[in-house]
Amino acid sequence: MSTFDITEHSHRRFNQLLGEWVLVSPHRSKRPWQGQQETTEKDSRPAFDPTCYLCPGNVRANGEKNPDYPSTFVFVNDFAALQAESPSGSFEKQGLLRAESERGICKVICFSPRHDLTLSDMETTEIRKVVDLWQEQYLELGALEEIGYVQIFENKGSVMGSSNPHPHGQIWAQSSVPGEPAKETEQQEAYFQQHGRSLLSDYLALELEEKTRLVVENEHFVALVPFWAVWPFETIVIPRRHFGHLGQITDEEKDAYADTMKRLSSVYDKLFNTSFPYSAGIHQSPTDGKDYPGWHLHMHFYPPLLRSATVKKFMVGYELMADPQRDITPESAADRLRGLL
Amino acid sequence: MSTFDITEHSHRRFNQLLGEWVLVSPHRSKRPWQGQQETTEKDSRPAFDPTCYLCPGNVRANGEKNPDYPSTFVFVNDFAALQAESPSGSFEKQGLLRAESERGICKVICFSPRHDLTLSDMETTEIRKVVDLWQEQYLELGALEEIGYVQIFENKGSVMGSSNPHPHGQIWAQSSVPGEPAKETEQQEAYFQQHGRSLLSDYLALELEEKTRLVVENEHFVALVPFWAVWPFETIVIPRRHFGHLGQITDEEKDAYADTMKRLSSVYDKLFNTSFPYSAGIHQSPTDGKDYPGWHLHMHFYPPLLRSATVKKFMVGYELMADPQRDITPESAADRLRGLL
Ligand SMILES: O=P(O)(O)O[C@H]1O[C@H](CO)[C@@H](O)[C@H](O)[C@H]1O
Ligand SMILES: O=P(O)(O)O[C@H]1O[C@H](CO)[C@@H](O)[C@H](O)[C@H]1O
Repeated sequence: MSTFDITEHSHRRFNQLLGEWVLVSPHRSKRPWQGQQETTEKDSRPAFDPTCYLCPGNVRANGEKNPDYPSTFVFVNDFAALQAESPSGSFEKQGLLRAESERGICKVICFSPRHDLTLSDMETTEIRKVVDLWQEQYLELGALEEIGYVQIFENKGSVMGSSNPHPHGQIWAQSSVPGEPAKETEQQEAYFQQHGRSLLSDYLALELEEKTRLVVENEHFVALVPFWAVWPFETIVIPRRHFGHLGQITDEEKDAYADTMKRLSSVYDKLFNTSFPYSAGIHQSPTDGKDYPGWHLHMHFYPPLLRSATVKKFMVGYELMADPQRDITPESAADRLRGLL
Repeated sequence: MSTFDITEHSHRRFNQLLGEWVLVSPHRSKRPWQGQQETTEKDSRPAFDPTCYLCPGNVRANGEKNPDYPSTFVFVNDFAALQAESPSGSFEKQGLLRAESERGICKVICFSPRHDLTLSDMETTEIRKVVDLWQEQYLELGALEEIGYVQIFENKGSVMGSSNPHPHGQIWAQSSVPGEPAKETEQQEAYFQQHGRSLLSDYLALELEEKTRLVVENEHFVALVPFWAVWPFETIVIPRRHFGHLGQITDEEKDAYADTMKRLSSVYDKLFNTSFPYSAGIHQSPTDGKDYPGWHLHMHFYPPLLRSATVKKFMVGYELMADPQRDITPESAADRLRGLL
């Protein structure tokens, strides 16, 4: 019998940030696909769309008129999933039915007044303004008594549930710390307790040595396909310096962050020659007043496409009932992305 | 300020089986939808399709010819995610990169020779034969030395990644116990240690009292929308009697199981007047030789549709980065499903 080879044989990889496993089936990429094909977005959009509720000067669902904003624009979501005024309280029956009220604030962030752009089309100096706004919002929302966690994210492309192609992201800020960042807190703080260094500092150092999973680098940030990636072309963006949240980022690092975003999103667009869909999100330390010395800010990109602009990976039956599963190795995904630089 | 009301205010509910939370935003169902619309499956399929690799008598990718099967048919997946012959071994670097080889067997189960049916179209006596096969397969695979867990599931509809409309499900059997059943093991065994009864027995008793989340009932099984449902019209099918796996089900219970499947899938099809897509899966005790007195077999249905045959719920940005989120309450979902009985 041959020896175990992670480029060839089915195996599980351990996700250090979540403390969970992913099933990897390297040989399975040869599987033919006769299933659903996604439609690609039309690529000719006007710079201004009079029917778009995010374009400057247009009127939104709640009757408010957007200002004539020149760069970014933030407002409270007209259909927010979380409400600031929810009465507090809880519901419980025999310990088996348990609910707790949850307060929060949901905001929308327009990245640009231009309806026809995406982050990858924008100048690095314009993306830098988005980073500035993320920082400002994290600090402003995080400072509120009732906010324990701030989730900044972007759903890009209709296949990722975005209902408007105008370049925009969202922020959901809430009282409790949700499950994913809670797991990352546990893993990162435990690692820091044990080693006195952040999990992602040590992980990044190892990846910089190995090189096989790197995609984009500059002086302050690295984007790579994590060893435990779930989505086919998933990446994680990690600052070289260990800091927990956007309140601690320097001006120079903000420029480097914008540069990384620009280069990573451009590589993505080249991969299947399409405006590449994804959900992306920044994970940073909770704002619940506790100390988190182990937290190391990072950003995840979860793109659904697998083989082409129209064939995505489905996270369904086995994935929902058992464990995430992937068909190509993270190393081969990184290799393809790097080849497009 | 008004008092907390779970039918009105945003809140989190605790999933007893997983030990995790879901965010519920009851007020959000009014949100307009301008995003992606799914295409519905064409509803006129031939009873036999000469190009379908699951129809009786046709030749599959590996060159084998399907038998002229009269009811169900099972075979090893030609593009299996798990391989039985993977060499065992592990990979490790500085404790940060960790992989372990994983062996397993992936099978496909045809529910019927008829290309044009789904479970809801089949007679209860025919569905009973599917239950028989599930039982046989669980016992056969679970008895193998190298198999520690058997996941039986179905992806129905192209929106759930199914690449062939021929009525079929899958089985992925593997050495380790994957994440979802591992969490359920922890929750169920802890409850059993503490109370001497299964978590789902006590939960079911409470739901039968409350009635608001029930959907379909017979002498041996109940289908209901769990208090902690994630998907809009998610249900869980629970046997009234506490047993851990299909090796322990009685003949009468198998009939009742088939009856539940028939009625539940018919209600689903009526909801949006479409062949209702879903991923469904049976969770039962691991086959790793250990004792699991707390395990209570059950089946999950995770259907993606939210508002119509073409508008689904997207599990994207916030959901991937933070916590699952839903827009309608489980109680109102159950109410709508019950109204179609
Ligand atoms: O095995 P199939 O039907 O080809 O594939 C389908 O189910 C699998 C198990 O849930 C998933 O991994 C695939 O993404 C999905 O397309
Ligand atoms: O808020 P939007 O853009 O209307 O909605 C989108 O993002 C939300 C947050 O990830 C999801 O809950 C929705 O399912 C998705 O369609």
